[in-house]
Amino acid sequence: MSESITLIPNNSLLTNTPEEGRQLAVKMARLIIKMTQPDAEVRDRLRPTYAEDASMLIAIGQVVATEFATIAKANDYWK
Amino acid sequence: MSESITLIPNNSLLTNTPEEGRQLAVKMARLIIKMTQPDAEVRDRLRPTYAEDASMLIAIGQVVATEFATIAKANDYWK
Amino acid sequence: MSESITLIPNNSLLTNTPEEGRQLAVKMARLIIKMTQPDAEVRDRLRPTYAEDASMLIAIGQVVATEFATIAKANDYWK
Amino acid sequence: MSESITLIPNNSLLTNTPEEGRQLAVKMARLIIKMTQPDAEVRDRLRPTYAEDASMLIAIGQVVATEFATIAKANDYWK
Amino acid sequence: MSESITLIPNNSLLTNTPEEGRQLAVKMARLIIKMTQPDAEVRDRLRPTYAEDASMLIAIGQVVATEFATIAKANDYWK
Amino acid sequence: MSESITLIPNNSLLTNTPEEGRQLAVKMARLIIKMTQPDAEVRDRLRPTYAEDASMLIAIGQVVATEFATIAKANDYWK
Repeated sequence: MSESITLIPNNSLLTNTPEEGRQLAVKMARLIIKMTQPDAEVRDRLRPTYAEDASMLIAIGQVVATEFATIAKANDYWK
Repeated sequence: MSESITLIPNNSLLTNTPEEGRQLAVKMARLIIKMTQPDAEVRDRLRPTYAEDASMLIAIGQVVATEFATIAKANDYWK
Repeated sequence: MSESITLIPNNSLLTNTPEEGRQLAVKMARLIIKMTQPDAEVRDRLRPTYAEDASMLIAIGQVVATEFATIAKANDYWK
Repeated sequence: MSESITLIPNNSLLTNTPEEGRQLAVKMARLIIKMTQPDAEVRDRLRPTYAEDASMLIAIGQVVATEFATIAKANDYWK
Repeated sequence: MSESITLIPNNSLLTNTPEEGRQLAVKMARLIIKMTQPDAEVRDRLRPTYAEDASMLIAIGQVVATEFATIAKANDYWK
Repeated sequence: MSESITLIPNNSLLTNTPEEGRQLAVKMARLIIKMTQPDAEVRDRLRPTYAEDASMLIAIGQVVATEFATIAKANDYWK
């Protein structure tokens, strides 16, 4: 497993808007998968598996929701 | 994966009522699925799979509960 | 999917007691399932599936626990 | 599904000690299962299923951990 | 199910260090499993099942992470 | 199960940056797996299993997200 990839873009949890915070949550979730499976070819092969599996799509939603909770709090909910 | 879709309607976590907050939680959960599987035809094909599977219905409830926790806090629980 | 059903009874997270808060958590969890699967006949058919499956009973407990965390906080733990 | 059973013993999240708080978390988790499956005979039949299944034992641990998080906070961590 | 076992060693969530807090999280997670399956022989039999199953190892990590969140907060993150 | 391994590097949740906090989350998640399965040979054998399984990659993401929530809060979100 390579850990030399960047796990948090711009090294910050702060974003200007909720939308950008949501995109960051998605990116952070993907980067953990990229770190655990650094081979792009394997990741490409797995894509149709999860993108056409209702159960995995829901599980991805769960991860993003969890990451977003942290980011939203870091930004004081953009209030 | 297309990321050009809007992930948070109105770019805000603030809503007038708990009911609207709950609807936002549902929408945010769905938009992650839409982003991960942008093909509407595939999503339509998956619908009966999860809507008639008790296990997946429960998992959807888990995602919505997690999104709602964030939205409720952002709105100071509408107190 | 119909979204015209009410997702939060009385449009409020506030309850008089922990017991009522717990009941609200159960109702909120069920209403998400109802919204995702609006056909009462299908839901009735699924009931024995999850009510006799240890794994699903535990998963339901997980959803209720998550909803309750939000409701309990909204009520400042009824202190 | 019967909802006439008590979901929170003593209708309170407050306990004297962490140990009692932990026991409350276990009870609250079990009461949701009892409410969802009110037939004691069915629950008895399911017991060996989850008690001898590593995966379900872990899932039960997850539910208890989530319930306990709420109870611990309600008690200000018994500090 | 016997509930006479101790669920929280020393009846406290407070520890001197993060490392001790982490060990407490592991112990608390294990004690719930022990309470649910009090037969040591069965637990011994299950050990190779989860210790050689990637999916269960990850699930154990999830439970410990959840317990640790509560313990870390109780200790104000040892700051 | 050996518990003599270090579960939290440097015995601290505090890091200089979000990126380092994220790396700590990954390490803490791995160390629980290492503690539960101390045999390096078995862990090496399991690696291709989870690294080529979309479902497990997502589950790993869930654990890291949960650990990171705690670390981010401990560091006041590096604000």
